[in-house]
Amino acid sequence: MSGTNSAARMISQGPAVVLVAPQLGENIGFAARAMLNCGLGDLRLVRPRCGWPSPEAEATSAGALARMEPPQVFDTTAEAVADLRHIFATTARRRDMEHLVMTPAAAGRELCKAYAAGEPSGLLFGAERAGLENDDVALADGVVTIPANPAFSSLNLGQAVLIMAYEWLRAHDRTPTMVRSHTGEAPATKGEVAALMRHLEQELDRAAFFKVPENRPAMVRALRTLLTRSAPTSQEVRTLHGVLTAISGRRLGGLPRGRRRSQGREREPQASD
Amino acid sequence: MSGTNSAARMISQGPAVVLVAPQLGENIGFAARAMLNCGLGDLRLVRPRCGWPSPEAEATSAGALARMEPPQVFDTTAEAVADLRHIFATTARRRDMEHLVMTPAAAGRELCKAYAAGEPSGLLFGAERAGLENDDVALADGVVTIPANPAFSSLNLGQAVLIMAYEWLRAHDRTPTMVRSHTGEAPATKGEVAALMRHLEQELDRAAFFKVPENRPAMVRALRTLLTRSAPTSQEVRTLHGVLTAISGRRLGGLPRGRRRSQGREREPQASD
Repeated sequence: MSGTNSAARMISQGPAVVLVAPQLGENIGFAARAMLNCGLGDLRLVRPRCGWPSPEAEATSAGALARMEPPQVFDTTAEAVADLRHIFATTARRRDMEHLVMTPAAAGRELCKAYAAGEPSGLLFGAERAGLENDDVALADGVVTIPANPAFSSLNLGQAVLIMAYEWLRAHDRTPTMVRSHTGEAPATKGEVAALMRHLEQELDRAAFFKVPENRPAMVRALRTLLTRSAPTSQEVRTLHGVLTAISGRRLGGLPRGRRRSQGREREPQASD
Repeated sequence: MSGTNSAARMISQGPAVVLVAPQLGENIGFAARAMLNCGLGDLRLVRPRCGWPSPEAEATSAGALARMEPPQVFDTTAEAVADLRHIFATTARRRDMEHLVMTPAAAGRELCKAYAAGEPSGLLFGAERAGLENDDVALADGVVTIPANPAFSSLNLGQAVLIMAYEWLRAHDRTPTMVRSHTGEAPATKGEVAALMRHLEQELDRAAFFKVPENRPAMVRALRTLLTRSAPTSQEVRTLHGVLTAISGRRLGGLPRGRRRSQGREREPQASD
């Protein structure tokens, strides 16, 4: 994946990511990279067991750590979240606790709402193996369980941070879900599409393609539907005229150039249909 | 993150993941891990430049490669996708091509529909630096652009596979977006909550908390709203009675144990309110 544009506006607001007692610098780096990919810049570390700063973290962050504010380091989770107004804790284990359990998507929407209200929020992640302590979970307004294959649910810390950061970005993202990208060429006019269909029908008639005349309307309709569904541009319609001309060995509206079976059997198509 | 349950049903159907000319075995391993986390098991490699099999891939897959069918290796992308009926290509770059551009979420829904229809589908990923060739993109029914921070949009191949595999899982996931987890304790009855409020009001009256009598109803209502919003269990209501009793130094309905300011000023609360 490429596409980094250093001149583009850096998005780096949004929820803090709090890693509690992370073991491996590599994972902190992966987490930082995932954060910055999704526009998050506030990384907080509680008792990092790999020591801090960490050359391994720098390496796997792919430049993200160098471009973010330096992570703050805390002795306790409570200190790390003291200024936040909303906290969601990610956890894979069921806890024997009374709390709100939410999907990553729901958490993304809640974080988005908090952001819109100007209320600082944060996401808590536990250590690679042990996860969060119940005392950390009790600090959170909600617990997020990332869906996973029950037979292979072990998510890497960096992956878990990516999923949550992605849901934050996704909740904000206003990209249309599906659009046609284009080369600048306008979609063909309906008249251009109709003329192409007439060209095609003419060649098919000349090639005696319609062996059962009663089937002709349905077959033509099926071809027209296929062509319309492809939503060609004007340029593509011209290309298809060229393809038909090349295959049939004959110019549209011009003189036959061989292979013609029955001279004058049909008139050239009219502009009105 | 923990929680792998080997006895649970392995989900391993769904779209194929096709990595075209991947450079690093590590990234193939991360991709395999992300796939299996999200229930995907059909990994296909086109001309892997790291060679195959790859010890680095085995290492970073965290056991995923050993639990999936061995990846198939192909010489061309066209061969790798020949049996598929729907292909979506992930790409960060804008192409000067006419195609459908979709979000990962939209692609997840399309893959889900294809799966429900029994139509095999696949996701194409290009090499780490170069991405997909235009000739590979032209094989795809749609192009997926993963949203990212424009100032830091470079996604690792394993991360890109995770996002797409996660969207596949997410499109299938029927987990309620937000639920209350619980310890098995039933939510308190409304009568239990009302009795707790009476206990609290009684202690506040005895402590002369309501200095401006006109404000009492609004203050009581605010406290009742807070208590109700916390949706306590019966056990939690009992705990809160204990907290009130301990702080006031007095048993509910019992004799004063000191600190009582005005003997007999109020009757004990009645069961009906």
